[in-house]
Amino acid sequence: MRHFEAEMNDLKKRLLEMSDYVQEMIKTTIDGLVKRDSKMFDTVFGLEKEVNIQEIIIDDKCLKLMALNQPVGADLRFITSAVKISTDLERMGDEAVNISEMALDLIGYPELKPLIDIPKMSDIVQQMVSDSIKAFNTNDVELAHTVLDKDGEVDELNNKVMADLKVFMIKSSEPETIQRAVNLMFIARSIERIGDHATNISEDVIFMVNGKDVRHHKSTGKI
Amino acid sequence: MRHFEAEMNDLKKRLLEMSDYVQEMIKTTIDGLVKRDSKMFDTVFGLEKEVNIQEIIIDDKCLKLMALNQPVGADLRFITSAVKISTDLERMGDEAVNISEMALDLIGYPELKPLIDIPKMSDIVQQMVSDSIKAFNTNDVELAHTVLDKDGEVDELNNKVMADLKVFMIKSSEPETIQRAVNLMFIARSIERIGDHATNISEDVIFMVNGKDVRHHKSTGKI
Repeated sequence: MRHFEAEMNDLKKRLLEMSDYVQEMIKTTIDGLVKRDSKMFDTVFGLEKEVNIQEIIIDDKCLKLMALNQPVGADLRFITSAVKISTDLERMGDEAVNISEMALDLIGYPELKPLIDIPKMSDIVQQMVSDSIKAFNTNDVELAHTVLDKDGEVDELNNKVMADLKVFMIKSSEPETIQRAVNLMFIARSIERIGDHATNISEDVIFMVNGKDVRHHKSTGKI
Repeated sequence: MRHFEAEMNDLKKRLLEMSDYVQEMIKTTIDGLVKRDSKMFDTVFGLEKEVNIQEIIIDDKCLKLMALNQPVGADLRFITSAVKISTDLERMGDEAVNISEMALDLIGYPELKPLIDIPKMSDIVQQMVSDSIKAFNTNDVELAHTVLDKDGEVDELNNKVMADLKVFMIKSSEPETIQRAVNLMFIARSIERIGDHATNISEDVIFMVNGKDVRHHKSTGKI
């Protein structure tokens, strides 16, 4: 039993490490976009490999923990949540890579316009990610709920960014401008998706702690 | 033990049912786009609710199967794969909803141009989805590999569609044209994502059957 507890602690530690990498990927890709520094994207691509390895290790660990210890109740919920959370973390990393690819293309063109509400959107989403991980680490259901509350705000900002970029494209039919706007649209979409993954993690935390499934209740705005 | 087998068969049956709904969602949304029939999207939105409920039931079933039977080996791999596959199916459904929303907006404008390579891309992706499910149903690792092989083809088609749409936007700076092209870009991206989920399912099938993790080896083009 002591061995099982040590393994469970190790699993948690690994998930937190994986989330550190992913948060660094997101922060670095946005910084690279704002500072127009292509070297920063190399860091993101390097970290992705690390994150992919972590996901496989964590999944394998979860499977072994289940097979060797037949956990039930809260322990079983913790392990199945860990599998889901590692998937969401890995997909956040994928979105950071998508952003880096778009940003790399973008900074090949001269700077023309500020990034509209993209940095603002990214600040909120980074907070969501950080809070969802913190909620997981401390079993904080209340904090997890604050993440769910921010999802609508991000969606609204995303819609605003999309509308602004469309106006931008309509006003200028220059090839370069269109290309820039398309890249920014996909960057905004990826940031929004990272927020969705933070929402998924928060829902997993609520389930893990309470044993209550809160998915697919977003449309009501209440849980 | 007989009871456990019956429950495992029921789990499989439910996953196959869920996948039927999801495939219908994808087919209907593309048909709605091609035929410009807004009523078809209502079907998609209705099916999404069904799919969301199925995901929760399947996850709950998996958790209970693990807690009550402490499965090991192939049974455990089947159950954890089922959790992952239901997540991928649900996300395919989300993408079908995204496509429907974009398409609903799109058909509000007069028809102007064929849908470029989008129907072709969608045919390949629908085949990938159908094959990944069939591979799951029949433990067919070889079929699962053919799905992985198609992933690059879809990526290439997607890049071509994006390039075509950019040219389209550059040539016409009309607000309506830009809006249409943006919608089509997001539709193409969603179709590509559905293909990614079919790839995930195929990787899960290979793991489930062989106990071998083949994720994150895509870049080599070989497994």
